[in-house]
Amino acid sequence: MSELGIGLIGSGFMGASHAFALAAVGQVFNLPRRPRLEILADATEDLASQAARRFGFARATADWQTLIADPAVDVVHITAPNRFHVPMAKAAIAAGKAVHCEKPLAASLAEAMDLADLAEAAGTTTIVGFNYLKNPIQMLARDLIAAGEIGDIVSFRGIHAEDYMRDPDAPWSWRLDPAGGGATMDLGSHIVSLARFLIGDIARVSAHATTVFPTRPGPDGKSREITVDDQCHALLEFADGASGAIQANWLAAGQTMQLAYEIIGTKGSIGFTQARFNELRLYRDGPDQKTSGFRTITAGPAHEPYAAFCPAPGHQLGFNDLKTIEMRDFLTAVAAGDTAFPDFREAARIEAVVDAILTAAEERRWVKVLG
Amino acid sequence: MSELGIGLIGSGFMGASHAFALAAVGQVFNLPRRPRLEILADATEDLASQAARRFGFARATADWQTLIADPAVDVVHITAPNRFHVPMAKAAIAAGKAVHCEKPLAASLAEAMDLADLAEAAGTTTIVGFNYLKNPIQMLARDLIAAGEIGDIVSFRGIHAEDYMRDPDAPWSWRLDPAGGGATMDLGSHIVSLARFLIGDIARVSAHATTVFPTRPGPDGKSREITVDDQCHALLEFADGASGAIQANWLAAGQTMQLAYEIIGTKGSIGFTQARFNELRLYRDGPDQKTSGFRTITAGPAHEPYAAFCPAPGHQLGFNDLKTIEMRDFLTAVAAGDTAFPDFREAARIEAVVDAILTAAEERRWVKVLG
Amino acid sequence: MSELGIGLIGSGFMGASHAFALAAVGQVFNLPRRPRLEILADATEDLASQAARRFGFARATADWQTLIADPAVDVVHITAPNRFHVPMAKAAIAAGKAVHCEKPLAASLAEAMDLADLAEAAGTTTIVGFNYLKNPIQMLARDLIAAGEIGDIVSFRGIHAEDYMRDPDAPWSWRLDPAGGGATMDLGSHIVSLARFLIGDIARVSAHATTVFPTRPGPDGKSREITVDDQCHALLEFADGASGAIQANWLAAGQTMQLAYEIIGTKGSIGFTQARFNELRLYRDGPDQKTSGFRTITAGPAHEPYAAFCPAPGHQLGFNDLKTIEMRDFLTAVAAGDTAFPDFREAARIEAVVDAILTAAEERRWVKVLG
Amino acid sequence: MSELGIGLIGSGFMGASHAFALAAVGQVFNLPRRPRLEILADATEDLASQAARRFGFARATADWQTLIADPAVDVVHITAPNRFHVPMAKAAIAAGKAVHCEKPLAASLAEAMDLADLAEAAGTTTIVGFNYLKNPIQMLARDLIAAGEIGDIVSFRGIHAEDYMRDPDAPWSWRLDPAGGGATMDLGSHIVSLARFLIGDIARVSAHATTVFPTRPGPDGKSREITVDDQCHALLEFADGASGAIQANWLAAGQTMQLAYEIIGTKGSIGFTQARFNELRLYRDGPDQKTSGFRTITAGPAHEPYAAFCPAPGHQLGFNDLKTIEMRDFLTAVAAGDTAFPDFREAARIEAVVDAILTAAEERRWVKVLG
Repeated sequence: MSELGIGLIGSGFMGASHAFALAAVGQVFNLPRRPRLEILADATEDLASQAARRFGFARATADWQTLIADPAVDVVHITAPNRFHVPMAKAAIAAGKAVHCEKPLAASLAEAMDLADLAEAAGTTTIVGFNYLKNPIQMLARDLIAAGEIGDIVSFRGIHAEDYMRDPDAPWSWRLDPAGGGATMDLGSHIVSLARFLIGDIARVSAHATTVFPTRPGPDGKSREITVDDQCHALLEFADGASGAIQANWLAAGQTMQLAYEIIGTKGSIGFTQARFNELRLYRDGPDQKTSGFRTITAGPAHEPYAAFCPAPGHQLGFNDLKTIEMRDFLTAVAAGDTAFPDFREAARIEAVVDAILTAAEERRWVKVLG
Repeated sequence: MSELGIGLIGSGFMGASHAFALAAVGQVFNLPRRPRLEILADATEDLASQAARRFGFARATADWQTLIADPAVDVVHITAPNRFHVPMAKAAIAAGKAVHCEKPLAASLAEAMDLADLAEAAGTTTIVGFNYLKNPIQMLARDLIAAGEIGDIVSFRGIHAEDYMRDPDAPWSWRLDPAGGGATMDLGSHIVSLARFLIGDIARVSAHATTVFPTRPGPDGKSREITVDDQCHALLEFADGASGAIQANWLAAGQTMQLAYEIIGTKGSIGFTQARFNELRLYRDGPDQKTSGFRTITAGPAHEPYAAFCPAPGHQLGFNDLKTIEMRDFLTAVAAGDTAFPDFREAARIEAVVDAILTAAEERRWVKVLG
Repeated sequence: MSELGIGLIGSGFMGASHAFALAAVGQVFNLPRRPRLEILADATEDLASQAARRFGFARATADWQTLIADPAVDVVHITAPNRFHVPMAKAAIAAGKAVHCEKPLAASLAEAMDLADLAEAAGTTTIVGFNYLKNPIQMLARDLIAAGEIGDIVSFRGIHAEDYMRDPDAPWSWRLDPAGGGATMDLGSHIVSLARFLIGDIARVSAHATTVFPTRPGPDGKSREITVDDQCHALLEFADGASGAIQANWLAAGQTMQLAYEIIGTKGSIGFTQARFNELRLYRDGPDQKTSGFRTITAGPAHEPYAAFCPAPGHQLGFNDLKTIEMRDFLTAVAAGDTAFPDFREAARIEAVVDAILTAAEERRWVKVLG
Repeated sequence: MSELGIGLIGSGFMGASHAFALAAVGQVFNLPRRPRLEILADATEDLASQAARRFGFARATADWQTLIADPAVDVVHITAPNRFHVPMAKAAIAAGKAVHCEKPLAASLAEAMDLADLAEAAGTTTIVGFNYLKNPIQMLARDLIAAGEIGDIVSFRGIHAEDYMRDPDAPWSWRLDPAGGGATMDLGSHIVSLARFLIGDIARVSAHATTVFPTRPGPDGKSREITVDDQCHALLEFADGASGAIQANWLAAGQTMQLAYEIIGTKGSIGFTQARFNELRLYRDGPDQKTSGFRTITAGPAHEPYAAFCPAPGHQLGFNDLKTIEMRDFLTAVAAGDTAFPDFREAARIEAVVDAILTAAEERRWVKVLG
């Protein structure tokens, strides 16, 4: 069994999350090819060396191009700031490396589609870090829907609300940059990814977005005009005719992880929130009205791949475990030369929905989703 | 202290609810003028007599015009089928009687506005049965918002979903009639009434509505085409700039009373569901991050007029108690010759929002709310 | 159809609750004999007159013996302070009147048993105000258990915790009186009544009780020694071998109505809390592990007699509605000359459990329950 | 910085959990001495080799004594079946190795105390795997209590209920062995550990335990008499006078992780369940009755050491993360030559409470807790 040489770019929030997952994935899962932590790249040699030591990478570099070019590197993990995603991914594809890129794939839809085209043309295995899709409970939801357990889908109502941008005086962040920022791009993309995963293609959208704090202190401390949205409500018309609405909001006081949805079908309903992501609420028509009601299902060994983490039900997976499952899916696909999910194409399609929402909000009209 | 002579038209779900409230209101509250149950009108003499006996009315009639004309009747309660609301309300206003009308006030916005004009011109005390507004916990929510406790309002996200129309083979009902029916009219009006009560005027809307079961068995058993919406998602732009979205759905499997909202402000958040209507969830910024979180407030004597029903907190009001509070507000206003809330004007404004939503869905564009 | 002449003693919290229920019961239910509000007695003529006027009683008196003796009175409702329960109930039984008495029936077990004997000997219809037993959801729980839906009962875990006595400086109250007071007597009796209603006879108990505030300001403002328990944990051995534990606590900061239980059977489980008393949580073994979980059942027309209050599910009953159901049960039994539930005998048996708990706590040993 | 040589005995549920934690701990935390995975021992060479390969240990053995004796091993992790805990721990202490042992430490209290004495005499750093104590939310609860935020403790009400033993026909398991088994030993010890951690020493207990299935199929398939308890309710008298009750139950249909408690103090209350272990419910007296209520606190960077796993609040830790924190605490103490928590002494004290509970149940009397 040969190993897969790993190159990790970045060691911040998401870089650490990749490192944790790379350390765990071989312990938890029986992989065809285990990861070998080859090179870690960061902005400076110092940063890179420290992170490499902490996370157990053999080498460190301040030059990400070196990392991509290195023959010992089979797989490139991109967790650098958003503006680097496109050039890094392009270089990795060109170098014949599998690519694991954090979201958003690109600041513009055109670039995202372009990357998807390049990856497909090169036969590159790619994945984008929509790790909430990797929750075993999410698989259960999708399986129930696909099996018709709740009938035809009538409505999808989703939200991703957190409060990390609610302080109007907080220091400037890349999230406020017009190229790639905004609540819809940052959070809305997650609920869009779930809508697509569970229900399917979205055909048209209408939206209302607002910038609640039109100025914030810029990186230089001076007041700076903000053009990205702080929150957005959007209507979704699915390709199969189902109706939906989603909200993205990063000012939602008191919410730290309200990535939630309620799905109504002609024979039942499903509810979920990431704030309690080991649980799914399910209602199905039953014979006895006296005892009918929503049931709360708790993740356990019946829900693949929970059992790999723990043989006992109800013990609960954590955020980093979802990343470990994502890593399992990705590295397994890489070893087999298969496509992974969600790949660059899927990420571009998610971005197409986000793009349509922002256009719809800007132009106050229904907008067709491209792609 | 003189009494108020009551005429009640109808004795179905809502007629009984009025009767319960009329029996309770004088026990629970210290009214300036207590109700005297004078005449009950229903479709036939038999129905009317039986109901009058059960509910303690002195007389019964099959002719609602007689009831309205009767000099012993000071107040007319209209709980007849929707299509009678306009003629009955008109007659009552013309006869100088105070009017308590169930929703919807009228099948068309024009008629609703007309009734509001007539009532105002006549100086008639009116109220429309949006009894969920009468919840002490709802008053608390409004007071908190009005006092700025959660800052400026950023977003209102609401829903009213139930499942009483989900059987596609169920017998025909007035709710399916184009004149006055549909999920948005029947349920959406409640969440609109709350949005207006808590946040304020709605300026513009966009919407997506679907008729999931395009035919149903008609009153004659033959298949009949359905034109009203089974469910609808709408975007709301409030006059003060806040953003919102609501859903109305009467096919929502497993939901019996999901009249719910989440409000986000710049300094806090509020959450509520009628399914647990003695509770309010409140988040406010606090000094200590370690112990911050949403709190669940339970209705008690601190929330007027809970104490009139029970001196001990947490014992819980029921659905009929909300109607009793509505009755208190109405009869108190009648005794004082004041306006009540929500009066015909407010009901017409709620209907204007519903009307705009249906137009927006039909024409797939943003629509300005009239009035 | 003749009426039943009602005499009500007391017009405080519970007196008002009886009055509300007496006004509602004939509206909501189709009674064989409707109540006629004859006389209201209170401590003074003034109090009695005011309450009689408010609640619609024809006459008022400061002499409860007059009320009991009055030939127009068929039914006596005792809501006076605890120490009057025994003499009033005795007099009413002797006068051949049906008796509705608030809990506790008597300050001592001997007196309670004696009253039960007297009532049985006289063939008197009696009921004691354990109104939480009248919840339709409680009937559902009992029916499910009786039908073996959750198998043989393994364990009952209950609590009744509120916080109304938690201020150590609050003014003296009858609840602190050794004759009839204490958390176990006041609150524990409710959870004992549910344990008996749902599971059956309790054979033996062990307990630990504490008086957290050993002195409190007496009626004269001077510090007074407190001998009743502020809180108590007890073990229950049921006659059929099931095991249980309950807690009574009136210092439970933040709890206003935590009357709750969890029942475990060999084939399923049931959970309930009075804080959300229109809901029952039920788990039953199912074929599919993937979708098994506790379901939340919401009260609706399937649960008798919910439909009498409202034809639509999920609209929720309130505290006073439970009293109305209690009144229905009682007046129906009176009209038929039947026994009602829970009658004086059942109340005495509940008191026997409370008595055994207090003895067990005092003597630090297992105690057999009498009766 | 030197490393710590790790010897792991066992590779089942708990062995894997240790292996996951050993792989993660150095990535997540900045340890003084990182673990080096030296030897893994299991029942056979094959099992040991496979597990060593999977978990990244350098060597494998079927002889645990060899592992303990190996000079490259500084730390011994004991996850073998319960009956091996004592001899393995003794050998490790004698060999001068730090010891991480899974619970229960020993089948008898005397042996547990003996091990604690030995470890203390040898100055050995020890820890026992009560990993639920390592939850950042649990630290918060303890800190709040210790700081007097909820006043003096009035009551502790706890439970640990799961349903893994509820099938009466399930194959024999070590849990049913009289030496070390039973619901109180297996589950009750967890809730006892929390009671001690949060409140303090337990002085006396009373209990009621039952064996619901008195026979089960033995390892040979023949019916075998069961002597351990399936469930147990116990009363606790804390040394400081607080009152408590706990339940242990492994037949609790539908419960997979109900390790829960409610603590009442004179100034507030705290509630927790391991089924949602990233949340704590807190009630504290506030100035405004209108908005008082239990708040739900969600784990985040404010709660050490959550931030080491994720810089964003609300993203949630999982079961294996708690083990990683336990590993951090242990390896840090080993590196410093300090005691860890909970060490053998604490585990023995927990076992003393369990022992007293079983005696109290057996002899139907209050029993003083030893030690």
